[in-house]
Amino acid sequence: MSFVKPGETVEDLNLQGLRIIQKEKGFRFGVDAVLLSDFAQVRKKDRVMDFCSGTGIVPILLYGKTEAGEIHGLEIQEEFAEMAERSIILNGIEEKVKMHLGDLKDRNLLKTLGHFHVVTANPPYKKVNSGILNEEDALTIARHEVAVTLEELIEAARTALKDQGRLYMIHRPERLADIISLMRKYRIEPKRIRLVYPNTKKPPTMVLIEGVRDGGAFLKVEAPLFIYDDEGNYSEEIRRIYGDERR
Amino acid sequence: MSFVKPGETVEDLNLQGLRIIQKEKGFRFGVDAVLLSDFAQVRKKDRVMDFCSGTGIVPILLYGKTEAGEIHGLEIQEEFAEMAERSIILNGIEEKVKMHLGDLKDRNLLKTLGHFHVVTANPPYKKVNSGILNEEDALTIARHEVAVTLEELIEAARTALKDQGRLYMIHRPERLADIISLMRKYRIEPKRIRLVYPNTKKPPTMVLIEGVRDGGAFLKVEAPLFIYDDEGNYSEEIRRIYGDERR
Repeated sequence: MSFVKPGETVEDLNLQGLRIIQKEKGFRFGVDAVLLSDFAQVRKKDRVMDFCSGTGIVPILLYGKTEAGEIHGLEIQEEFAEMAERSIILNGIEEKVKMHLGDLKDRNLLKTLGHFHVVTANPPYKKVNSGILNEEDALTIARHEVAVTLEELIEAARTALKDQGRLYMIHRPERLADIISLMRKYRIEPKRIRLVYPNTKKPPTMVLIEGVRDGGAFLKVEAPLFIYDDEGNYSEEIRRIYGDERR
Repeated sequence: MSFVKPGETVEDLNLQGLRIIQKEKGFRFGVDAVLLSDFAQVRKKDRVMDFCSGTGIVPILLYGKTEAGEIHGLEIQEEFAEMAERSIILNGIEEKVKMHLGDLKDRNLLKTLGHFHVVTANPPYKKVNSGILNEEDALTIARHEVAVTLEELIEAARTALKDQGRLYMIHRPERLADIISLMRKYRIEPKRIRLVYPNTKKPPTMVLIEGVRDGGAFLKVEAPLFIYDDEGNYSEEIRRIYGDERR
């Protein structure tokens, strides 16, 4: 059986032999998915749901990094869901990792999938925007299409999570006020925030946030995460997260 | 005339010859006041109000650092307001800097004082809590007395600010979600956030935040501010902010 189609590549994740099928050109997973899978605290036997799952990178990484009981991914685009399905079979992890094609706004679908201890989300606008040239573009996107999506995402997480279940997101720092406001609106209390900075001199490019469904109010802002050290090499923590065996 | 009472000292602020009267023992100004006065963007001729003004450190620093038209301080404790008044006279800046004894919950007082381009606030709980030993203590304080104060403060800022006026606060990072929620409740849009970390390895101990009264939604999270460098010396930026002339 041939898992890989023309124009696709298989990338080794440097994690228990796990691999992922990606397009040679087009969407490829980034550091955001890797950081999210490291930030998420998944306990033994947890049921996990990854929203906006794309090619399934977060479920596959969580499979390698945690002792989750089941890991589900939900993806609205058939092409990606189908690639994710092939990666799951390629890795032989289909007993634990399940990909679903569907829309997180579909309440009946969410009901069918049941409740989860953990929901992860790396919303797709991030990659759409990766070529932003000025603040005005970001502003337009922030105010229009993304605002709707973020609220729908957090509302869906409220529905999918068990009581005291945990939502983990990675997003752009300029949406932090919106994320916090929307989490509180849907009674997912922000508990843990970590800013991701390119290096010690620059503004953050990502924010990691944990919220607990109906959790009590106590927020911990964590130590900064730097992608690069002062010499321009990957930081020690990034090398740890990527499982660099040369350490 | 003797400005300084027994048990008090006069500290040179290393800024245009300005000085402040403080107690030898008891409350003395800290890095938070200095960071707030540096973070606040005060334009030429702005009317500025400093809430929870204490011994007047923020108004005196802003006098030295900006071209504000008038700088007012509001302090509820008579002992501090009186010390601030003496510092203002000692510096000979009483034409521009005015200290008021009163409660920011007093709406009539706020009306009398008029509207401001800028409100600054370094709420006092920070110092009260400086001996926190565990998260439970912080939690109790966060949920009870402080919550009321923070909301009252932000509500008073709403009242005191002109349209598009700017609120600058320094606070504890664990209150960030509350600050953002309350700012939005009182339609002061969070526009700029900066986390203050002891060094590159530790969680932040302070957060600086700017909100604009009835401002549009666009949040900029800024580069990290470190108090110490990796060698344990004051960072270059802290030395700049403190006006270290040895640079």
